[in-house]
Amino acid sequence: MKLYDTAMAPNPQRVRIFLAEKGIEVPTVQINLMKGEHRSDDYRKVAANMRVPALELDDGTIILESVAICRYFEEIQPEPPLFGTGAVERAQVEAWNRRMELEFFMPTAMTFRHLHPAGAALEGQIKEYGESQKAIALKRMAILDGELADKEFIAGDSFSIADITAAVSIGFGKVSKHYIGEDQKNLQRWYDQVSARPSMSA
Amino acid sequence: MKLYDTAMAPNPQRVRIFLAEKGIEVPTVQINLMKGEHRSDDYRKVAANMRVPALELDDGTIILESVAICRYFEEIQPEPPLFGTGAVERAQVEAWNRRMELEFFMPTAMTFRHLHPAGAALEGQIKEYGESQKAIALKRMAILDGELADKEFIAGDSFSIADITAAVSIGFGKVSKHYIGEDQKNLQRWYDQVSARPSMSA
Repeated sequence: MKLYDTAMAPNPQRVRIFLAEKGIEVPTVQINLMKGEHRSDDYRKVAANMRVPALELDDGTIILESVAICRYFEEIQPEPPLFGTGAVERAQVEAWNRRMELEFFMPTAMTFRHLHPAGAALEGQIKEYGESQKAIALKRMAILDGELADKEFIAGDSFSIADITAAVSIGFGKVSKHYIGEDQKNLQRWYDQVSARPSMSA
Repeated sequence: MKLYDTAMAPNPQRVRIFLAEKGIEVPTVQINLMKGEHRSDDYRKVAANMRVPALELDDGTIILESVAICRYFEEIQPEPPLFGTGAVERAQVEAWNRRMELEFFMPTAMTFRHLHPAGAALEGQIKEYGESQKAIALKRMAILDGELADKEFIAGDSFSIADITAAVSIGFGKVSKHYIGEDQKNLQRWYDQVSARPSMSA
């Protein structure tokens, strides 16, 4: 088994944190996006969509998509559960992970791609769209602060993949100068707590 | 249990098809988006994000997000499996459902929101972004045609939630005049086959 990984990119980071929480070690192959290695013929044979991460199993099966890779490891090693336990909790973790992705991670990524000088190398930039996404990402942080007033973690009482997605989004947002506001005490409390986990430096 | 549903919207449709495939009947409450019922105080108490669908369980628990609602029903009634069986297949269904969502459903939805006259009512439109998303959605259909050359369903040998997401995307795209090309024989074969399922009229 091997994991195609990029040290500096947020999606592979989600998988690395997930694996560290599980205590699973997987050999990695580094794909340098800045050198365009994701567009090489060799990597296209692994991931036709040229995205990182990708997981290659020993029989050659390729699993794409960060959350699908995490799901695979949850299935083969359920403990500690990071997708929830029982029907309701599994649905709530799914819902919160999706909300953190679609409402927070995506606009954070789109801010970077459409406004940051380094994003210009990846695709054409549409400034007006970037500005709209920046506003959405910042508003989402304010809403998240309120949501965290009465719960310890994003999806409730237990640390889950939703916390990983949200924490990676906060980290990624710093590149675009999205910082936790001084008045966002709940968000800061949660972020300090989650950032202190050893997995977060994976 | 009740499902907050909107007859004409693509996300609630995904849940309705999923339930029909499972043979599960849930009473629905219709939320009329054109009348702004999703912004009402009553609905905000159900879904603070003002999105449809939402599932309310008998104890008052609310589950948001279409795929999370589907996941809940998969957990309480595993047959027929629509998220795959076993670790590898579950990961592959997750990956394909996500790819159909992020690479196909989302750009299709963004085309509608940013270019279609009816989309203007939902949020501000950025034409240049809409055009870029339209190109992505149409290109994805061409890629999908190639991907379906040697498999029956989106994620492989079995019908899954990934087929539901892709079929709903094709239907939603028609509003923006995204039609399957005459040369896209594999995509047409798959779409005809999937559209003939009784669940698809749910």
